[in-house]
Amino acid sequence: MRIGALVFDAYGTLYDTQSVQDVAEQLFPGKGEALTQIWRLKQLEYSWLLTCMERYEDFWELTRRSLDYAVETLGLRAEADTLERLMERYLHLAPYAETREALQALAAWPLAILSNGSRAMLEGLVRNSRLADRFQAVISVDEARAFKPSRRAYALVERHLKTPKEEILFVTSNAFDAAGAKHFGFKVGWVRRGAGAGAPAGAFSPTVLFRHLRGGADRLGYEADARLGSLLEVAGLVA
Amino acid sequence: MRIGALVFDAYGTLYDTQSVQDVAEQLFPGKGEALTQIWRLKQLEYSWLLTCMERYEDFWELTRRSLDYAVETLGLRAEADTLERLMERYLHLAPYAETREALQALAAWPLAILSNGSRAMLEGLVRNSRLADRFQAVISVDEARAFKPSRRAYALVERHLKTPKEEILFVTSNAFDAAGAKHFGFKVGWVRRGAGAGAPAGAFSPTVLFRHLRGGADRLGYEADARLGSLLEVAGLVA
Repeated sequence: MRIGALVFDAYGTLYDTQSVQDVAEQLFPGKGEALTQIWRLKQLEYSWLLTCMERYEDFWELTRRSLDYAVETLGLRAEADTLERLMERYLHLAPYAETREALQALAAWPLAILSNGSRAMLEGLVRNSRLADRFQAVISVDEARAFKPSRRAYALVERHLKTPKEEILFVTSNAFDAAGAKHFGFKVGWVRRGAGAGAPAGAFSPTVLFRHLRGGADRLGYEADARLGSLLEVAGLVA
Repeated sequence: MRIGALVFDAYGTLYDTQSVQDVAEQLFPGKGEALTQIWRLKQLEYSWLLTCMERYEDFWELTRRSLDYAVETLGLRAEADTLERLMERYLHLAPYAETREALQALAAWPLAILSNGSRAMLEGLVRNSRLADRFQAVISVDEARAFKPSRRAYALVERHLKTPKEEILFVTSNAFDAAGAKHFGFKVGWVRRGAGAGAPAGAFSPTVLFRHLRGGADRLGYEADARLGSLLEVAGLVA
């Protein structure tokens, strides 16, 4: 592939959205895992639903709305400052173990982020993780007022990087994002993280169910160009 | 409320999408419940994702795609005729226990269905359940080539019923559909079926997780005008 720049998704790709679970478990002992998974599942549902409705609110608002939903459905009681502590975690998500090394190996390339996160969320995230200097651009879909997989969100990349879409390698671990980016016209590397692995008997842990729902390759007719085991394999793809 | 016509959602509102579970369990002993829930969760995800991407395939195709996903993620092996048997269930979904009586009580009103289902799916469904004569119109979003909660889908109702949206009572048990219909401008009755009821300890059955994800009132800023315990309460609302 002829590649001019690499663009990464943030949540679930460079940064581990599951890393809210420690605080969730401290705040709601025994319920942290369920809260973490339902929160994340609804957060993306809400981004899709608003986009279908041709409405927009920034991702911080949606993240809060989905947290409110998760707290309510699980029958939990939370004071405002408890919810703030959880929200705050979104500014301090842990990068995956290999994120730093993978980006270091790609230092010769123009790198960017394209994320659903609001500008403030993304700036907080890259600053707090000391990764800001890795990226030529940190692009929020907020500018397009439409969430991924809307074409309007992906179209921001060409404008910011002055690189035609055929020469962008878009890297994401979110299967819907891989499908949307491919549909838009990027080259796509899908980092396969935590797919479901067969049917457990009877009950599922919330994490296993999350993996079954969001971990597999979506059957939307848009296959990624490459399936990667981790971010470390991106360098080999563009070498 | 001044109401001129009543419009019902089909899947999950008049007809029980969970009624595929018997056949799913026969075909995949011990896995029928997980297959049923993941299938339905992904079916709606796919309808939203395609709509965000400004693409369209009819709901039969999407139902098949989501079934393929569910079978794969659960590590099941299925021959083509097994998948056909499951798909066929969508033409024979059971009406809820109160559906017939609730529609009978509303016989004096113009009634219609607005559903994501393709025309062929909906015609099969109302014919097989002997409810076809109840409806003045059975409207498929297929005409708009956009799934709910797109405004284009809801806009079909005014065209078919010649009734302004403010005078439509839209009845659905799908929380996202209640939000979308309210955003569009209908009066909305949300039939609350099977919400999650507090956090179970540890693992969830797939059905409990489904209820937690899709059973609560969505926090999208569009509240239904009325929350109903069952379809039987609709008659009281318009009396």
